[in-house]
Amino acid sequence: MQKEELVSQIRKKRSFLCVGLDTDPDKIPAPFSRLPDPVFEFNREIINATRDFAVAYKINTAFYEAQGMKGWRSLERTLQELPADTFKIADAKRGDIANTGRQYARAFFETFPFDAITVSPYMGEDSVTPFMEFSGKWAILLLLTSNKGATDFQQQKVGNERLFELILKRSQQWDGHQRLMYVMGATHPSELATIRKLAPDAFFLIPGVGAQGGSLSAVAEAALTSECGLLVNASRAILYAGTGEDFAAKAQDKAREYQQEMESLLQKYRV
Amino acid sequence: MQKEELVSQIRKKRSFLCVGLDTDPDKIPAPFSRLPDPVFEFNREIINATRDFAVAYKINTAFYEAQGMKGWRSLERTLQELPADTFKIADAKRGDIANTGRQYARAFFETFPFDAITVSPYMGEDSVTPFMEFSGKWAILLLLTSNKGATDFQQQKVGNERLFELILKRSQQWDGHQRLMYVMGATHPSELATIRKLAPDAFFLIPGVGAQGGSLSAVAEAALTSECGLLVNASRAILYAGTGEDFAAKAQDKAREYQQEMESLLQKYRV
Repeated sequence: MQKEELVSQIRKKRSFLCVGLDTDPDKIPAPFSRLPDPVFEFNREIINATRDFAVAYKINTAFYEAQGMKGWRSLERTLQELPADTFKIADAKRGDIANTGRQYARAFFETFPFDAITVSPYMGEDSVTPFMEFSGKWAILLLLTSNKGATDFQQQKVGNERLFELILKRSQQWDGHQRLMYVMGATHPSELATIRKLAPDAFFLIPGVGAQGGSLSAVAEAALTSECGLLVNASRAILYAGTGEDFAAKAQDKAREYQQEMESLLQKYRV
Repeated sequence: MQKEELVSQIRKKRSFLCVGLDTDPDKIPAPFSRLPDPVFEFNREIINATRDFAVAYKINTAFYEAQGMKGWRSLERTLQELPADTFKIADAKRGDIANTGRQYARAFFETFPFDAITVSPYMGEDSVTPFMEFSGKWAILLLLTSNKGATDFQQQKVGNERLFELILKRSQQWDGHQRLMYVMGATHPSELATIRKLAPDAFFLIPGVGAQGGSLSAVAEAALTSECGLLVNASRAILYAGTGEDFAAKAQDKAREYQQEMESLLQKYRV
């Protein structure tokens, strides 16, 4: 999906919500367990409940890989179920030497038709560029993540700046940097503002709202642009909003609630 | 596999060779393409040709993921074919927040019975520890990789030390650090010696010998210990040693050649 189309979907749906399908078979309502592919059936209901309020879906590959072959089958079927007008993210955090990176790009952009994949920057430029060679496809580079361990290395000072700032600056010089987005945790609003100044046109994928405690209005204040420039992800807060038979209705309520807050923010900042 | 058993296998086989199964369907001999699972059939022949000379096998998951469902099936069958006495590495370079990390650990230590997985350190301690909670299982943390991009961030100075040194030192303080190994590219022998001093007992997984140009004797001189402490990987140099019908014999010759050089080095350094 090209950037123009993503922005157009955001304006149409008045939402920059990304629903994270981190579907844990142990957490989905009991009746699903009698079906041959519980994860897919659950995802289908979540997708149908949230499709009017979300512009993007993020599949966290770990939860599918944990199920082996069966999990990859659930992932494949889930991907086919995602609405054509939504932005499809493989949250896979891959990254390897170039000849291996090309295989990962093929896996997530060709074999599975995702629009974007999250990528770890640790191995440097030639580990990221294989993902930047596809028109309408995106590498979403980890900068500052939402977990406690983000302080261990990402925030270390390299010269006068922190590692995640250096990574942002360097990566903005790489060929094809127009095809980069960045992961910035909602739990760091002041750093979000800094990063926005350094990459005024880039889209940020923001995890950490909901279960991890980040605030949507703080994120918008720090980094919303005239093209929105944000995809805010909620996973557990939506998937497990309800645990009984009404889980889909509860998920819909939660997604609508996010969308309504996002609509106010888009209006406030004149997107 | 516990460390004692790995060391015992190294002494028994007089080898610290890891064969990397980065199997690219486009590069395997033509007759395989008529079989229903060419990658598995090719791997089986490579495994049989090299099993007397290798103590470890490393499956580069990217090459399997690129084939989608079919690839995961090839991976599963290949894993079943690996000799019981060999150390089985998932070269998957995963790493995510703890609740996701636990899913990856489950994928590679339970669903697929690997002994070890390569892990990116970028997200910090809580992204690595989920892999360190399994007896006899190993997280192999990326320190200094063999590619050009290793200079971009891994070698940046953080205070008085480089990022990869900081990661090593910090990670040696984490709970369960006895279950850590490290990736150090063969293309950096002087850094290998530095890192060996900081982690005298740890095993290093060394890529970059062969196609990428690193030297086995320089690696041994820098980092061989009384328990060996090294697994040196060769992938393309073995898999594609021959391209015709005699590919397995050529792969065997190449693996034997590595083993013989390793035997001399083990002898020289009295392992």
